[in-house]
Amino acid sequence: MADSRLDEFARIARFFAPLAGSGALGLLDDAALVEVPTGRQLVLTADALVAGVHFLTDDPPDLVARKMLRVNLSDLAAMGAAPLGYLMTTALPAACDEVWLAGFASGLAADQAAFGIALLGGDSVATPGPPTLSVTAIGSVPAGQAVRRSGALPGDLIYVSGTIGDAALGLRALRGELAEFDAAQYAFLADRYRLPQPRLALGQRLVGVAHAMLDVSDGLVGDLNHLCAVSGVGAVLEAARVPQSPAVREALARDPALLALVLGGGDDYELVFSAPSAAEATLAALATSLALPITAIGRIEAGDGVRVIDETGRKIALAAPGYQHF
Amino acid sequence: MADSRLDEFARIARFFAPLAGSGALGLLDDAALVEVPTGRQLVLTADALVAGVHFLTDDPPDLVARKMLRVNLSDLAAMGAAPLGYLMTTALPAACDEVWLAGFASGLAADQAAFGIALLGGDSVATPGPPTLSVTAIGSVPAGQAVRRSGALPGDLIYVSGTIGDAALGLRALRGELAEFDAAQYAFLADRYRLPQPRLALGQRLVGVAHAMLDVSDGLVGDLNHLCAVSGVGAVLEAARVPQSPAVREALARDPALLALVLGGGDDYELVFSAPSAAEATLAALATSLALPITAIGRIEAGDGVRVIDETGRKIALAAPGYQHF
Repeated sequence: MADSRLDEFARIARFFAPLAGSGALGLLDDAALVEVPTGRQLVLTADALVAGVHFLTDDPPDLVARKMLRVNLSDLAAMGAAPLGYLMTTALPAACDEVWLAGFASGLAADQAAFGIALLGGDSVATPGPPTLSVTAIGSVPAGQAVRRSGALPGDLIYVSGTIGDAALGLRALRGELAEFDAAQYAFLADRYRLPQPRLALGQRLVGVAHAMLDVSDGLVGDLNHLCAVSGVGAVLEAARVPQSPAVREALARDPALLALVLGGGDDYELVFSAPSAAEATLAALATSLALPITAIGRIEAGDGVRVIDETGRKIALAAPGYQHF
Repeated sequence: MADSRLDEFARIARFFAPLAGSGALGLLDDAALVEVPTGRQLVLTADALVAGVHFLTDDPPDLVARKMLRVNLSDLAAMGAAPLGYLMTTALPAACDEVWLAGFASGLAADQAAFGIALLGGDSVATPGPPTLSVTAIGSVPAGQAVRRSGALPGDLIYVSGTIGDAALGLRALRGELAEFDAAQYAFLADRYRLPQPRLALGQRLVGVAHAMLDVSDGLVGDLNHLCAVSGVGAVLEAARVPQSPAVREALARDPALLALVLGGGDDYELVFSAPSAAEATLAALATSLALPITAIGRIEAGDGVRVIDETGRKIALAAPGYQHF
């Protein structure tokens, strides 16, 4: 027992201490210190991931680490926040050996550099169960200006960044359930599932522009439903306007029934937001400057719920209202 | 699958939303917002707990919740911080049913009230493994004045709050390994193990007084070793001065070999700190005002490591250098 515990200190020193930011005090203190810039407010979000539930036990550990960070950064993006850092707890079985840990730490290091964040603290414990990870991500927004889910107003247009459905089809392709993609399409879709792009720059630029925002994690329709419920409004979603990658477009041409998966599947981690129609030019300029599509896909209206319509205005019934982990 | 996921939203609404503070936005947004008071700096700490490793699967869930919070609050206390709130992720198997969750939530509610904190956010997921909990606790200190582990200076006296060894003997008593306590002693020791008292008031009053501080979680000698290593100093610990409860004193009278467990066992969650001898009167007044013993137990000196001595100044060799979870 003593040796394992010493191993834990040694593991922290070897794998995690090099990732620590200045506020983390070298991971040698009881807690970390964070300066919040003047005039800004702190934004905090936490997520847990369990092997076999949220990722596959044999997924490359660097990708597990990167997706874990990105999912949390996406939550910060959805509030319009700039990221500061994160705390992480790991509960790992003995099977996660030094090779696994080295890969995991290299993934953390890569995305810390990519997104300008650092490890601020955490805990590393053993478990007889599956690898279980928890991250608390920390960011800041201009005080009082966080973009909430609750601000959507009837008459707002609904916008979404990037393309929708790639990750849901990517997961099915990785599972071998969708076999018709060519190698490039397969790689693109798998990458979109495994390595989402948190839209941090866009989120921060939408402070003062978007009325309400969230990130698409459970599925476009399901998440838009959340936004509407919290805002006390309804929405019309025009299915034909939802931006699709070429791979998704081809898959839908082959099998139109996949539309439910595209609109209802999860893990897109794009931003969906409502904004007044007066913001149209601002958003067009923003899309150009960020080289990221921003597409109007519907409208907020009085009432409740999300009505999905086709090109003719007819309501479409979708089988799967949202992505289900369980 | 869909029903389980809906259950998750329903569970959050039923059990966790009532615990949410104002910054948590009703747990309905992507992230929580926290105001850091002007002139103060944020302090963050995270811990993970796994059933079967850090608590027993059949421990009362309200006590599991309360110990989880208190262990984290103790880390804040050790920095001199005042608590603000916490984020929590839970990975729970199906066996943790609504009865378990109701008990768990009632424990959170009790200690939120006791310590003036609120739930700020988190995540609730399913696991095929043991119940796994992670908490990130958030507090604040006067900017630049957090009490670190690294400030101990040769000549400082070493102090500890409360009494030492209760929790280590309590755990053995709960396991039936120490049977000779009467009912009142058994209840006292078990309570000290199950429900530690984070020394938040003392920690905050030691800002500007203590040179270095940490909380005793791994065991007095082991933790003092950490403090010395980070400060680049050594320490002499006078075993006979270490404050003991009557129950521990009687147990040691029966079996002096238990001293290694008292000095090396964990889970005391008392504060150990170094302070200049000039602080003696301040500390005496503080002990009176908080009705909490503060006892000088040794001295910081140049060098490294912790030397434990008996009344005659002879070095004592201890079998267990620190509490081992694994």
